[in-house]
Amino acid sequence: MTQQKRVAVLTSGGDAPGMNACIRAVVLACEQNGHECIGYKHGYNGLLNQEYTEFTADIIHNLIQQGGTVLHSARCLEFKTQEAAQRAASNLDALNIDTLIVIGGDGSFRGAMHLSNHWDGQVIGLPGTIDNDIAGTDATIGYYTAIETAVSSIDKVRDTADAFERLFLVEVMGRHAGFLALSAALASAADYVVLPELFNGEEETLNDIHAQLTVRRELRGNISYIIVLAENVWPGGINDLSQRLNALTNSEVRPVILGHVQRGGSPVSQDRILATQLGAHAVSLVGKPVNAVMVGEVNGKPCEVPLPMTWESTKPLDESAVQTMQALINSRYA
Amino acid sequence: MTQQKRVAVLTSGGDAPGMNACIRAVVLACEQNGHECIGYKHGYNGLLNQEYTEFTADIIHNLIQQGGTVLHSARCLEFKTQEAAQRAASNLDALNIDTLIVIGGDGSFRGAMHLSNHWDGQVIGLPGTIDNDIAGTDATIGYYTAIETAVSSIDKVRDTADAFERLFLVEVMGRHAGFLALSAALASAADYVVLPELFNGEEETLNDIHAQLTVRRELRGNISYIIVLAENVWPGGINDLSQRLNALTNSEVRPVILGHVQRGGSPVSQDRILATQLGAHAVSLVGKPVNAVMVGEVNGKPCEVPLPMTWESTKPLDESAVQTMQALINSRYA
Amino acid sequence: MTQQKRVAVLTSGGDAPGMNACIRAVVLACEQNGHECIGYKHGYNGLLNQEYTEFTADIIHNLIQQGGTVLHSARCLEFKTQEAAQRAASNLDALNIDTLIVIGGDGSFRGAMHLSNHWDGQVIGLPGTIDNDIAGTDATIGYYTAIETAVSSIDKVRDTADAFERLFLVEVMGRHAGFLALSAALASAADYVVLPELFNGEEETLNDIHAQLTVRRELRGNISYIIVLAENVWPGGINDLSQRLNALTNSEVRPVILGHVQRGGSPVSQDRILATQLGAHAVSLVGKPVNAVMVGEVNGKPCEVPLPMTWESTKPLDESAVQTMQALINSRYA
Amino acid sequence: MTQQKRVAVLTSGGDAPGMNACIRAVVLACEQNGHECIGYKHGYNGLLNQEYTEFTADIIHNLIQQGGTVLHSARCLEFKTQEAAQRAASNLDALNIDTLIVIGGDGSFRGAMHLSNHWDGQVIGLPGTIDNDIAGTDATIGYYTAIETAVSSIDKVRDTADAFERLFLVEVMGRHAGFLALSAALASAADYVVLPELFNGEEETLNDIHAQLTVRRELRGNISYIIVLAENVWPGGINDLSQRLNALTNSEVRPVILGHVQRGGSPVSQDRILATQLGAHAVSLVGKPVNAVMVGEVNGKPCEVPLPMTWESTKPLDESAVQTMQALINSRYA
Repeated sequence: MTQQKRVAVLTSGGDAPGMNACIRAVVLACEQNGHECIGYKHGYNGLLNQEYTEFTADIIHNLIQQGGTVLHSARCLEFKTQEAAQRAASNLDALNIDTLIVIGGDGSFRGAMHLSNHWDGQVIGLPGTIDNDIAGTDATIGYYTAIETAVSSIDKVRDTADAFERLFLVEVMGRHAGFLALSAALASAADYVVLPELFNGEEETLNDIHAQLTVRRELRGNISYIIVLAENVWPGGINDLSQRLNALTNSEVRPVILGHVQRGGSPVSQDRILATQLGAHAVSLVGKPVNAVMVGEVNGKPCEVPLPMTWESTKPLDESAVQTMQALINSRYA
Repeated sequence: MTQQKRVAVLTSGGDAPGMNACIRAVVLACEQNGHECIGYKHGYNGLLNQEYTEFTADIIHNLIQQGGTVLHSARCLEFKTQEAAQRAASNLDALNIDTLIVIGGDGSFRGAMHLSNHWDGQVIGLPGTIDNDIAGTDATIGYYTAIETAVSSIDKVRDTADAFERLFLVEVMGRHAGFLALSAALASAADYVVLPELFNGEEETLNDIHAQLTVRRELRGNISYIIVLAENVWPGGINDLSQRLNALTNSEVRPVILGHVQRGGSPVSQDRILATQLGAHAVSLVGKPVNAVMVGEVNGKPCEVPLPMTWESTKPLDESAVQTMQALINSRYA
Repeated sequence: MTQQKRVAVLTSGGDAPGMNACIRAVVLACEQNGHECIGYKHGYNGLLNQEYTEFTADIIHNLIQQGGTVLHSARCLEFKTQEAAQRAASNLDALNIDTLIVIGGDGSFRGAMHLSNHWDGQVIGLPGTIDNDIAGTDATIGYYTAIETAVSSIDKVRDTADAFERLFLVEVMGRHAGFLALSAALASAADYVVLPELFNGEEETLNDIHAQLTVRRELRGNISYIIVLAENVWPGGINDLSQRLNALTNSEVRPVILGHVQRGGSPVSQDRILATQLGAHAVSLVGKPVNAVMVGEVNGKPCEVPLPMTWESTKPLDESAVQTMQALINSRYA
Repeated sequence: MTQQKRVAVLTSGGDAPGMNACIRAVVLACEQNGHECIGYKHGYNGLLNQEYTEFTADIIHNLIQQGGTVLHSARCLEFKTQEAAQRAASNLDALNIDTLIVIGGDGSFRGAMHLSNHWDGQVIGLPGTIDNDIAGTDATIGYYTAIETAVSSIDKVRDTADAFERLFLVEVMGRHAGFLALSAALASAADYVVLPELFNGEEETLNDIHAQLTVRRELRGNISYIIVLAENVWPGGINDLSQRLNALTNSEVRPVILGHVQRGGSPVSQDRILATQLGAHAVSLVGKPVNAVMVGEVNGKPCEVPLPMTWESTKPLDESAVQTMQALINSRYA
């Protein structure tokens, strides 16, 4: 029999599809395990302002399907100070909270660690970000949906690219990591992908694209050609790359920035399942002697990782995906 | 019994979802009526270069579902010359074509009219553009799908806007018309919409938004707020509007340009049905004494409109949609 | 300046996507016009049990996107009695309701008329049903979404039908009308469609399918073949038709019943816009000397129709859609 | 430098989304590695009838997006005989095929093993089935898409279930395994799930549902309630279960059979990526001393498994998914 605890949950940083599914799982699992659960609103701001809400069956019902986060999110620069962490700790104590669950990305986890250094309670992180740039978990909540959104957008762009046999340059999100760009490129059968992890400089990239395009045009005449570009890789930005490709290949190049659309939407099944499993596992740790960890999933099994490991080590791209992309990208039939 | 004719079809200008459905309908209806049918490729360029293709059951099968155009499209500036129209006429005659069907927008229809002035055969236009800016038809092929794509994107943006209670500015296509923007704004429950047809200048628009936002914030605190912006309306472009709103409302404003995604994708049912009906109706006119017309649909019935009328008169926005948008936009609950 | 009234709204009968969008429009338009608005729950049952709710900005926000109905729906056989209508009238009077808006299908409209015979207030109907079987309006709220759901399901079935070159029989909803089946068949490029309005008996249908299939197989070998079947047409049901086609064509035939999936889902843009326009127009009639009418849309414009006309006259299928289907269905390329 | 080989590929058994993506990967990887590649049509029937096709860039382009299989599929009972395997072997030899790649499920793999016993060439299997019932791989090609299709259907059913506060019984595919049902139930927040792996008999299941439903109704009044039922579990079929629940719970219960819709559709990104990786890995084995294996993916890495292992060992449900489902299912808030 588990001892009843009081749990608080919040979402922080960029929102990601599946955050709501994760909140739902936390609330249901708490209820099943006899814990009480409240939700802080607006990320760490809610913690500082003691702004929180109780959960009801009405809020939870159908929550699994919804994008965004019912607890709202926010960036909170102020939380970095010692004073803020102390205020948060007193607020948590004032509500007799035993465990705080933070759903967010690496900035949110740094905040969670910072709080943990000033609070006696238990702090658990859950990885919620479309960027998948969190070490210690194979996937982050929201990543699968963002891939799907990017891929269905690129599928649409392909229609126009084919109709006009034209080059398109599609920028996808990912902060400083290429996970989303690589997966989107593989799944959309993109002709080329520019990733931070594999970037060899502007000249080499331009030459590489030009060479590949030249071979294909010799073999097959005019063709459509889609380049997936991870954000923040190209020094001069997508318009610079577009203009240089335009000049180099003597072709009209159209840039498309997918933008914030990638953060929203009803989560796909894989994100709902991941969010549900991680949320339930986090609650199973409530009251156990484990603290300042993120609950992630490695090889299909939930695991716990010390919070600092999630940002201190760099998560590598999936090696077999990289190999596959490189193996196929130069095929004449691609 | 209809007399057997030889029909050619081409797609021209910006591609639109449903062009393929329209090609399919033309080919099937020709086959049913005993006409032969070929397809010119790459718009008017194919006509100038005598580049064409026969249709087979394999090409037609499942074509209704596909975005883009199997005949490819292109802009063709050269076609404006007298020499080009004459060359096209000889090419059509060389293949014994009786009727040319052109699927495209107003630029394509000008080309069709130009050709018609230099060719004895029958020329029929079919309205294919996501912009819906063609007079003489209630809707154009591709318009419904573009609305759906824009709306499902704005639904996703709403998730993030709600999570952060933030302003978003979403630019949708439409060339110089507000059809797509108005429909997308109505269907996505946008909080404000900036349309060319109703634009009263920068200052008035900024003040209007500011006033509405101020009222809502007084009543309901922080809220999300989505502005749909038709492309080509705001003199300084979306980033200028974004920065000025930022300054004026003292809030972070995020601009999102939906871009080329709006041109592609499998057509929604309404576009498939419209394309099929218009294509079949166009073929029913083959060999009849009607020429240089566009086949459109008004009040659910196919009709024929002289080509010049499609661009000479300006098509107004749907009045009841405008009224509804204006009626709801200032509600406190919106 | 309009005089302030008290308005009640309810949803009744089978739910349809867009009912929520319609509720939202009613609430927003009331607020804009200075009327108060409450919602009765569970259709006419709520009216009998005086079960109602106030609307808040929280309920209305994002409601346009949601399938189902937040007011819930129900069938209410009891409402047919005189006693029930009188009780409803007293309940409405007890709350000082001036206008009752009923969103539903023809059963709901009969109930509304029945109530109107026993109540002094104003009764307005809004057509909400996926079946589109309401005279006096070109389309009903929910119809467009149901077409889309059916078509995207048939698109999926087509993949398997093509892979196995097999016959599939897909039953779509529509009660006793063929609107949904005809539109779904046209938009999915179905090879055959069985509609109540055009049904010539079992033998003729079987022979017709057999003859068409035989021609196609002679020309093109094994092919996939999809028959769309309106529900309630085939006397022995879909499994009987499936078995008889099996025997007749000497082919495996797979029956698929799309079922309740067709009633749900986030409404497509056309339903959201229709629902919004009709809802706003209904509110514009509040307090005006018009009563016991349905607000529909004909040729793109809102209109009012006496309630009994909505069920007394039979709404015909769209003639040009029928002609197109018949024109294309026998093409060898189809 | 790899030695040039001749590779043949076929798809067999029930079609699954991603089979085309897998064919594409095989063709591209062959081209990149200097191998020639042909495709047998209609599964093993093509092998027996020497019916095959060459691949061209046109066939491969955009193939990743398409459901079904361009090579067609079929069941082939005849292939079980010794004579058939010998004929297939001679046909392969007549075309100088070195390696045959079979994309399919366990029946297809038995066929592949059977052929391998009568042919000197290399045989490689790739797991393509929506059922995920193949041991030796974490997921099968098509599984992720089928989950998504099932879940988006159940999301729609939920709208009606909520509107009427009614019980729905939704049957999903899976042959004799509960993978699809469990994932669909978890991701759709179903209230109950009936799986072959966890089935404790009819009475216990009925009592379990009844007990849970009774508790919820006491707490929350009328509620919607969705039961996901794996096909082939309930002895009397879905209608029997529906009627018994009807009687037991004194509620209207609506049965929905999702059916063949689950096999089709454009593959989701996870299936496209899995199919691409497995296809490319299979080609990397061409000419290597490995034979009669399936290429699967375990813990994100491609692996090879002897064909008989794929059907001799029973693949268990994911344990943490089972635990999560059981942990949440009885929550009052679910």
